[in-house]
Amino acid sequence: MTSLKGNCLVAQSGGPTSVINASACGVIQEAFRTGEINEVYAGLNGIAGILNEEIFSLNEEHPEEIELLKVTPASALGSCRYKLKSIEEGEKDYRRIIDIFEAHNIRYFFYIGGNDSMDTAHKVSLYAQKVGYELRSIGVPKTIDNDLPIIDHTPGFGSAAKFIATSMKEIGLDARVYDYPTVTICEIMGRNAGWLTASSALAKEFEDQAPHYIYLPEMPFSFEKFDKDVRSAIEKYNHCVVAFSEGIKTEDGKYVSEIGSENKAVDAFGHVQLGGACEVLESYVVRNICKKVRTVNFSTIQRSAAHWASLTDNEEAYMCGQMAVRYGVEGHTGKMVGMIREKSKDYHCNTQLIDLEDVANREKKIPREWINEEGNFVTTEAVDYIKPLIMGEVKLRMENGVPRYARLSKKLIAKKLDVWKVK
Amino acid sequence: MTSLKGNCLVAQSGGPTSVINASACGVIQEAFRTGEINEVYAGLNGIAGILNEEIFSLNEEHPEEIELLKVTPASALGSCRYKLKSIEEGEKDYRRIIDIFEAHNIRYFFYIGGNDSMDTAHKVSLYAQKVGYELRSIGVPKTIDNDLPIIDHTPGFGSAAKFIATSMKEIGLDARVYDYPTVTICEIMGRNAGWLTASSALAKEFEDQAPHYIYLPEMPFSFEKFDKDVRSAIEKYNHCVVAFSEGIKTEDGKYVSEIGSENKAVDAFGHVQLGGACEVLESYVVRNICKKVRTVNFSTIQRSAAHWASLTDNEEAYMCGQMAVRYGVEGHTGKMVGMIREKSKDYHCNTQLIDLEDVANREKKIPREWINEEGNFVTTEAVDYIKPLIMGEVKLRMENGVPRYARLSKKLIAKKLDVWKVK
Repeated sequence: MTSLKGNCLVAQSGGPTSVINASACGVIQEAFRTGEINEVYAGLNGIAGILNEEIFSLNEEHPEEIELLKVTPASALGSCRYKLKSIEEGEKDYRRIIDIFEAHNIRYFFYIGGNDSMDTAHKVSLYAQKVGYELRSIGVPKTIDNDLPIIDHTPGFGSAAKFIATSMKEIGLDARVYDYPTVTICEIMGRNAGWLTASSALAKEFEDQAPHYIYLPEMPFSFEKFDKDVRSAIEKYNHCVVAFSEGIKTEDGKYVSEIGSENKAVDAFGHVQLGGACEVLESYVVRNICKKVRTVNFSTIQRSAAHWASLTDNEEAYMCGQMAVRYGVEGHTGKMVGMIREKSKDYHCNTQLIDLEDVANREKKIPREWINEEGNFVTTEAVDYIKPLIMGEVKLRMENGVPRYARLSKKLIAKKLDVWKVK
Repeated sequence: MTSLKGNCLVAQSGGPTSVINASACGVIQEAFRTGEINEVYAGLNGIAGILNEEIFSLNEEHPEEIELLKVTPASALGSCRYKLKSIEEGEKDYRRIIDIFEAHNIRYFFYIGGNDSMDTAHKVSLYAQKVGYELRSIGVPKTIDNDLPIIDHTPGFGSAAKFIATSMKEIGLDARVYDYPTVTICEIMGRNAGWLTASSALAKEFEDQAPHYIYLPEMPFSFEKFDKDVRSAIEKYNHCVVAFSEGIKTEDGKYVSEIGSENKAVDAFGHVQLGGACEVLESYVVRNICKKVRTVNFSTIQRSAAHWASLTDNEEAYMCGQMAVRYGVEGHTGKMVGMIREKSKDYHCNTQLIDLEDVANREKKIPREWINEEGNFVTTEAVDYIKPLIMGEVKLRMENGVPRYARLSKKLIAKKLDVWKVK
């Protein structure tokens, strides 16, 4: 163990999840516990806020609010979509980051995010080494997309999957109550990887239950096949529920969401008519198959439904944050905390250090053999893989019938450097 | 107490809710308990199925599945949108219903539904009296819209309101994570009454929290006012979350959802571009205020989210079903079971008999004094009225990380009458 006395900085980036704050809480509480870290700072709005020297101290927040972070959805520290350039092209940014770290004696940097954020944590680590600034930069994975390579799964995925599977079960019951044929079209997040859409399969126990078909971005989408599928379900069950990823594309590589967009109307007010894949499929079904169509777009509900988070996911997210601090204190840098599933009968995951450069900017998709031959559902292997990740429910603090979530004051500390404006 | 030995028939109608089956369960279990009822039948798909003599027996279902109905969303007995004509115009239908009741010795008819269904229960009661068929017809209210007159509230509303309030809190946290301005537009069910949309206000504790504005069908919608509201929230909080009812209309009585529809595009595939009020508002904001807009349409999620049902609502729904049987056995007919709030400090509701004719086809809207002067939010009176209805959480039976809901076999009994086809 190489001790390095100093302060730490934790920040969040990319799209929120139900448990990204559980990871932050793990970082913060472990940093408080260890004797190696003095002040626990947070960067407001990820790397973008850090570049602006927008920093607040967790030591100033009420411990009860920090404890509540464990169950609070969305990025409580603020988020950004800022992507650092390569060190060669954007050295100014890196120099600024190290200057800020130095000014506040930040020796530990914990960055919670997806592929892009792991890239940031990696480059910051490299640059610190290059300029001889002693820094421990550790990435903490999060994404509902579950698309990080090497590791078993990402924190955030299990909770979103649990909400999708449960809602799909409920929507499926709702979709079958009438005596006339109906079609329900459910759009689920996932631009390139269909993991979350695949999790809707966990709603299904019997053949007649929703979802009847699952369309993934890993497979080309065919309107002819879709047409045949929907008609077949209506014939058998008098209703059809389909789940699909926002990122499905046709054979020629065109996003379904963009079909017809070249021709989108401008209405009486001069408003552009917007819409996604959901509307394209709805429109297809209304015109060709069945007039009674409902669309369900899970939108930001799916990634923020902390009231129905998976306890397994929640605990793992906390553990990843906690382990990031331990690994940092042990002297590691340029690494990500990854979850590795044990080869045992009962589900169990341990953390392991992964090289950030192996994770950054790479995507894990659903393997072809976990998708059925027809390309319109997932296999039991996929279901068995996802099932343990959605087990258990989180205990919430309820107030007035709704969950009480954390509320941080986020009072920024005094800036020590010149003003800087992130472009 | 006028004893009337015979069988009973329970059926469901209209849009599903999270607790409509809790009411059915109350009817069924109470009918089993009382010594007055022999067989407990269900009409498949409400009055439409009854006209087809599509009936199954709850005595044949597993008691455990009946118990699970208590927490199962959507209409487990099936539903319909069939509206009976007046007795003068549609006597054939009524004659048919009484013939079926007579053939199966059905002496109790419990109909669970909204305004239209109460109208049906009422007319069937009247017709039975007219032709001298002894029948006890009792209505059990349900609707997430909370728009039945006289009674304090309807079963189904509290659970939908709890889900909306909780999700709004979660979506609100999600909507504020970025460092650039964003607008989130949330569409909530309610064609003419804004009760459910109003319940989004229960997400808000502090001024800066979502929802920033609530637009109800009770007030005319103005794009100018909307524009001003959204800009003001962005200025103050760097983000804006609005909740609105699907049924909002402009000053001239036109549904916002229909604006621009005369001009809707037909895309490259010949598909009609569909969309509701959500898309119209999104389009307005993108063109005029801010490019970063998210839409959230709660669709059927809001009425089927039994995993987050209100315990209060759930227990009341069960009680309404149970009391319907007791009132029927006592000799009442042509009545609805209504919930009346006691004038006490702590919330408590009792059931009371309401004349069906006073309820049928009438709507209860939010009173003007419960909407703020500007017409863009609700008052604390509205919040205080809704709050007790969303209290408590239901205990679910979990299997594989998702709730286990009831599954009835619904084996139809042998028909005794000639075939009949509902038009």
